[in-house]
Amino acid sequence: IKSAVDLTLYLLTDDAYLNEEKFWRVIEDCLKNGVTAFQYRAKGKKGAEMYREGMRLKELCEKHGVSYFVNDRLDLGMALNADGVHVGQEDLPLEVVKKHFPGKIIGLSATNYEEGITGIKAGADYLGLGPIFPTSTKEDAAPPCGVEVIRKLKEEFPNTPVIAIGGIDKEKVSEVIRAGADGIAVISAVFGAESPAKAVYELRETIIKAKE
Amino acid sequence: IKSAVDLTLYLLTDDAYLNEEKFWRVIEDCLKNGVTAFQYRAKGKKGAEMYREGMRLKELCEKHGVSYFVNDRLDLGMALNADGVHVGQEDLPLEVVKKHFPGKIIGLSATNYEEGITGIKAGADYLGLGPIFPTSTKEDAAPPCGVEVIRKLKEEFPNTPVIAIGGIDKEKVSEVIRAGADGIAVISAVFGAESPAKAVYELRETIIKAKE
Ligand code: NI
Repeated sequence: IKSAVDLTLYLLTDDAYLNEEKFWRVIEDCLKNGVTAFQYRAKGKKGAEMYREGMRLKELCEKHGVSYFVNDRLDLGMALNADGVHVGQEDLPLEVVKKHFPGKIIGLSATNYEEGITGIKAGADYLGLGPIFPTSTKEDAAPPCGVEVIRKLKEEFPNTPVIAIGGIDKEKVSEVIRAGADGIAVISAVFGAESPAKAVYELRETIIKAKE
Repeated sequence: IKSAVDLTLYLLTDDAYLNEEKFWRVIEDCLKNGVTAFQYRAKGKKGAEMYREGMRLKELCEKHGVSYFVNDRLDLGMALNADGVHVGQEDLPLEVVKKHFPGKIIGLSATNYEEGITGIKAGADYLGLGPIFPTSTKEDAAPPCGVEVIRKLKEEFPNTPVIAIGGIDKEKVSEVIRAGADGIAVISAVFGAESPAKAVYELRETIIKAKE
């Protein structure tokens, strides 16, 4: 099951976009146009609301054959029978999450080489690595790690998918893919675009070309 | 296992008290002096911190033979192997939590008769019912339901423990216990007292007398 999951173009939500009225029109267009994996991230909502909203999104993902992940909340991931859960360095420990969600894909955020190596050794099924480039949106973001970290991690652990995240727009996709990233995770490059569906399509095309 | 749990004097944490420096001195005194069950409640903390703090509290509870519950977060309850999880009306649905934490005690907050009945029928192992009396501390609290609701619920479902919560001080304990409450849940009546350990001892004595 695990190997069937395609993390090439991994779309994340973010409260700001999620709570916009147009979100529900936009999201289905994105899922249809090339998104391969989706992560539901809803900070500061109550469990009942996350359960309803997460279920609605999971059904859309299933309809379009997109893998479905839940951010941070293992319990919500279990409740929704997600394909996996994505945790950060400050969430419940990776080992604990893996133990309680057997057979599922547990991803980990890493901001640099050390966190990446430690995470892989602890059993992370994939890494969300970043920010690779400077980002303007997150004030509390870690310093950018650069594409060389991707190359180093993939040389040492070729079997663990590395998904590049943070400040990746159309122009930078080729660079991270050529450095060895298995995919990219995006929020604003899609939801902030004039046409999110077109952004998805073009990102996907660029990734495919860069992988050739 | 379930019947062995004593919810007579159920102490809850609250971020305000939990983050005070003296908390760790106070809590062990309370657990020694008559608290029968404890609930770890930490809103707005990250998972890793809740895991560390919750583990430390669980060890203290085990040491003193106090049942240990986690508020809201099923995943944290699982991670800590708590005796149970307590959910509110806006948390993950009770049925979902019960399904994923079999053999454990799942409690539910109810603010009135209807929520109580619905919760019991949905399988709540106990109810945290309240506020029974007007409370000054919580601005968003539901209207007080009064002691008669305890009597009615216990008449219809004598086997489901009803724990009274909200605005219960030393003076009001006897009233709720005589109305049929199996126990009381307290925060400020203990942590706000000049001597929390003494408050625990006195509340326990009052409950025992009222039950005679
Ligand atoms: Ni489980």
